[in-house]
Amino acid sequence: MGMHFKWLAMIALMAVWASAAAAQTDPLPSWSDGPTKQAIIGFVTDVTREGSPDFLPVAQRIATFDNDGTLWIEQPIYVQFAFALDRVRELAPQHPEWSRTQPFKDVLEGKMEALAGLGEHAAVEIVATTHAGMTPDQFLQIVKNWLATAEHPRFQRRYVELLYQPMLEVLSYMRANGFATYIVSGGGIEFMRAFAPEQYGIPPEQIVGSSIVTTFERRDGLPDLFRLPKVNFVDDGPGKPVGINQHIGLRPVAAFGNSDGDLEMLQWTTEAGKRRLGVVVRHTDAEREYAYDRDSKVGRLDKALDAAVLDRWAVVDMKHDWKVIFPFEKR
Amino acid sequence: MGMHFKWLAMIALMAVWASAAAAQTDPLPSWSDGPTKQAIIGFVTDVTREGSPDFLPVAQRIATFDNDGTLWIEQPIYVQFAFALDRVRELAPQHPEWSRTQPFKDVLEGKMEALAGLGEHAAVEIVATTHAGMTPDQFLQIVKNWLATAEHPRFQRRYVELLYQPMLEVLSYMRANGFATYIVSGGGIEFMRAFAPEQYGIPPEQIVGSSIVTTFERRDGLPDLFRLPKVNFVDDGPGKPVGINQHIGLRPVAAFGNSDGDLEMLQWTTEAGKRRLGVVVRHTDAEREYAYDRDSKVGRLDKALDAAVLDRWAVVDMKHDWKVIFPFEKR
Repeated sequence: MGMHFKWLAMIALMAVWASAAAAQTDPLPSWSDGPTKQAIIGFVTDVTREGSPDFLPVAQRIATFDNDGTLWIEQPIYVQFAFALDRVRELAPQHPEWSRTQPFKDVLEGKMEALAGLGEHAAVEIVATTHAGMTPDQFLQIVKNWLATAEHPRFQRRYVELLYQPMLEVLSYMRANGFATYIVSGGGIEFMRAFAPEQYGIPPEQIVGSSIVTTFERRDGLPDLFRLPKVNFVDDGPGKPVGINQHIGLRPVAAFGNSDGDLEMLQWTTEAGKRRLGVVVRHTDAEREYAYDRDSKVGRLDKALDAAVLDRWAVVDMKHDWKVIFPFEKR
Repeated sequence: MGMHFKWLAMIALMAVWASAAAAQTDPLPSWSDGPTKQAIIGFVTDVTREGSPDFLPVAQRIATFDNDGTLWIEQPIYVQFAFALDRVRELAPQHPEWSRTQPFKDVLEGKMEALAGLGEHAAVEIVATTHAGMTPDQFLQIVKNWLATAEHPRFQRRYVELLYQPMLEVLSYMRANGFATYIVSGGGIEFMRAFAPEQYGIPPEQIVGSSIVTTFERRDGLPDLFRLPKVNFVDDGPGKPVGINQHIGLRPVAAFGNSDGDLEMLQWTTEAGKRRLGVVVRHTDAEREYAYDRDSKVGRLDKALDAAVLDRWAVVDMKHDWKVIFPFEKR
């Protein structure tokens, strides 16, 4: 082997090392350098450095993340609502009366415009009808089966491919620094349990969400739980601090959201007179994802955008802050 | 140093080693050898041994423990009820009407016999009145202050000294084998959070219990939660599987209880057609603690005692299975 070749090999090796080292020193490689990235890294650094006045013991490192619009896509309709609509279509043969009853008639006739204007009552009725009448295990399997094939109408990809890569990096980064990363979502707790453990590395007990009533019964001699068509808890807006307190029993020190439904969680987390982190994901990229805020029916970001200034939350400008949106763009 | 002395020193050293080794091989030193101890150790061994047909990955090693009567004393009245009665006495000066209103009148006049026959409505009224009207943080501090001084009427010791030493060993042993050890109690979730982390090594998020309604509000410009005098969830009987599913999202593989309030949790855990562990603590030691089961008003063990035979749960005979009851007996 000649000298020349050895030099080339060594230079190549050094390049690999250098790039590995750079990757190692940047825990958030999909984030552009700028104030938002710095806010996240600065906070984590400050509260994890021994001797820092802001140091937090591991037991207090609780970070909460909204799901829809914060960790994955929520447009043009919430993923769980897309699931509910598909369930209506699937169950329709067993419910001939639905062809004459609203809101089911609109669903079956594909009148999405009418559905967009659904009141809470109709939305609850659709969710209750399609999410109840089975055990939690059966429901989990129904959701898993649906997620394995259902595709997003615009991206033509399965929903679990439409997670936000930069946020996956935040989850890993915070966990590597001793944080427990909880999902705190207005979405259904048992809907999320069907994918969050695998997709986000967040175990079922670290998921807080809305729920319907379940009841303990014996059927065919075996004890099990059954899901009833009745709302139990709505984990949204002021319900998020309530759900967090019930479930975790500690006030978070970092919270991530993207809509007015996260306002109270962000306020409760950050208005504590101590070093805290609030982050709002603002959807500003119509080309790569969606652009919406104050006027959106889904994921409206209005009050929380004003509060971000007052409470000094970091606001993610998706278009500029995120080098890639979805994991598949990395390839 | 003569040969004789060296030999003596060596023998002494060997004795120390031997006793250390014995202690190391017995994870439950306060348990007498017998079928109950063997049931616990046998289960843990079977489900943690790689290659075993009963092997469980760490994520599935969920063990649930009732609190009152299973981890600590519950006679002559539940500790939380003793707390509530003391609160009535403490708050009485601010409620002159209580001297004429039941059930408060009976409490203030010390008519414990009358209180023992209290209906659910009166009990809920006492708890609601004494447990609400403050933030969770304030309530936590009130409970901590009370626990720091209040004494058990018979043992003249603080309640946190009246934990069951053999069960503390079970908690440590199971955690050392990868189990998450949850409290699942009919008692108040926020009452238990005041002592369980420190006393049992169980963090606030691994405590499931009954709760009252909390609401998010701004007071004096600061966002906080407030406890309302209204029952939210009763984590007892069939409520235990419901609470576990809501909170943990997985069915336990081991459950420990001592009363009919644990019946459904034990059934749901063990009637799964797989290697599971159910343990019932039976209070059989009137001398060192209390003896009660089928006829007791507090911690009645009747249906669950019959079910133990059917479902092959291990039944702890306190008098014979436990060498010591409380930690202070070890000294």
